[in-house]
Amino acid sequence: MECDITTIERDGYLDVPIVRHQGSEATAGRDMVAEEYPVALVYNGIAHAVMMATPRDLEEFAVGFTLTEGIVGSVRDIYDLDVCCGEDGAEVRLTIAQPDLLRLKGRRRTLAGRTGCGVCGIESLALLDLVPEKITRPLPPLVASSAIIGRAARELLPYQELMHKTGGVHAAAWCTAEGAIVKVFEDVGRHNGLDKLIGYLALHRIAMHDGFVFLSSRASYELVRKSARMHIGLVATISAPTSLAIRIARQAGMQLASFCRRDGFVEYTAEDGENNGHHAP
Amino acid sequence: MECDITTIERDGYLDVPIVRHQGSEATAGRDMVAEEYPVALVYNGIAHAVMMATPRDLEEFAVGFTLTEGIVGSVRDIYDLDVCCGEDGAEVRLTIAQPDLLRLKGRRRTLAGRTGCGVCGIESLALLDLVPEKITRPLPPLVASSAIIGRAARELLPYQELMHKTGGVHAAAWCTAEGAIVKVFEDVGRHNGLDKLIGYLALHRIAMHDGFVFLSSRASYELVRKSARMHIGLVATISAPTSLAIRIARQAGMQLASFCRRDGFVEYTAEDGENNGHHAP
Repeated sequence: MECDITTIERDGYLDVPIVRHQGSEATAGRDMVAEEYPVALVYNGIAHAVMMATPRDLEEFAVGFTLTEGIVGSVRDIYDLDVCCGEDGAEVRLTIAQPDLLRLKGRRRTLAGRTGCGVCGIESLALLDLVPEKITRPLPPLVASSAIIGRAARELLPYQELMHKTGGVHAAAWCTAEGAIVKVFEDVGRHNGLDKLIGYLALHRIAMHDGFVFLSSRASYELVRKSARMHIGLVATISAPTSLAIRIARQAGMQLASFCRRDGFVEYTAEDGENNGHHAP
Repeated sequence: MECDITTIERDGYLDVPIVRHQGSEATAGRDMVAEEYPVALVYNGIAHAVMMATPRDLEEFAVGFTLTEGIVGSVRDIYDLDVCCGEDGAEVRLTIAQPDLLRLKGRRRTLAGRTGCGVCGIESLALLDLVPEKITRPLPPLVASSAIIGRAARELLPYQELMHKTGGVHAAAWCTAEGAIVKVFEDVGRHNGLDKLIGYLALHRIAMHDGFVFLSSRASYELVRKSARMHIGLVATISAPTSLAIRIARQAGMQLASFCRRDGFVEYTAEDGENNGHHAP
């Protein structure tokens, strides 16, 4: 791809013409919408994946994706990274350590994602990564409580700049053990927001075992799987979890807190291994 | 995969143990969560994609996916379909027409999806399908109005059975030109819900040009792209659109109505081709 725009960062939103309909009235105006933008990830010259992401913080995004998808085990194995933005998409060119590249080629995976997902291009159930390793957590581990979850829930809103503008993005926040918000990233894809956050933490050498992830979205398989890979002990989400998110969190020994509100939350990983099957009759 | 459970349909939700935290109190209980379940799509014996979906209506899902991803051009080119559910995932085995299979092999795409997306396994920007054909619409075309959108918005809620149980799924509804709801499907993935709906319409030979799609989610690239492929002239969503959803809808000649409420909505495709670039300074 020719690099026809050299600006690395776009704004992440566009101003578009609209017509607002209210009852029988129609009024022309303008509105801000979240930008959805193809981002290709290229490792050592080999095209690997295209994700639909919001074009902000693409360096953090690429680093986070490379870590949470298990392409490299440490940020130190990413030797170089260039973001090249064109009109119709960006290319992030990464240089990774040779053993990681060989393993990547070996997996022969083709990744691609649209807004809603961080997608791992597997073609059959046998390749699906459904059994995470137990994560290692410090002792005593961080324990979810209404106090720390509630604090994060109260403090998140002012950080959601793109959400206020567009109504169309999710937020991923890193919080201290006390629930104070450290950093927030926004994206049209909830998994992209998480990847940006994890990329930021890795680039800034912020330890991931003594804080927690707070997400404005639901909790799905992919979000918990990515967090487990980084040994994050607590994932908290504003909306509901899926069955597979709960199962992966339990298997990994993580805590999953959902429906997080200012004064409480629901813990879905309390009783290990119980009722993974069908719902009760 | 051995077919260890012969039941085709699961319920789409599980009953799980929880601990509800409210202030300093913690109460053990149970809650229903939406099921997220790997569904592998196999065409003429060739594993093609794994989607994370809610295991209900998997026949409709597979037919819809096969159509909206352009794998076949007509439901008549799907000769056979078997759904085989195991504990850890389902396999849907389809037999499609030979020319379609050859084209599919030719594209050499590997698809895979997690909850959030219907994913097309492309590896580089060049393979991205960003320019839809203009869709053909009947004359006069269905035109979005507060009356028909508002009716769909008012009537959707009672159909969202899984949402009421779990709080964790999206709904995709088919509406008549008057805004009456015909059929609703739910899924943890918004694109899966749409695929189920389109599969249902195709299987029941319901014309897609004289009604519209109403989605409980945001409008992303993938949802509009899938709808464009079916020549659906109006897509309405309860939440916000992305920039790329608007662009694809405009290029295809579709109407995109978002922030749909009981008494109004915002039309994002009113002025064709205007302001596809950066936001105004």
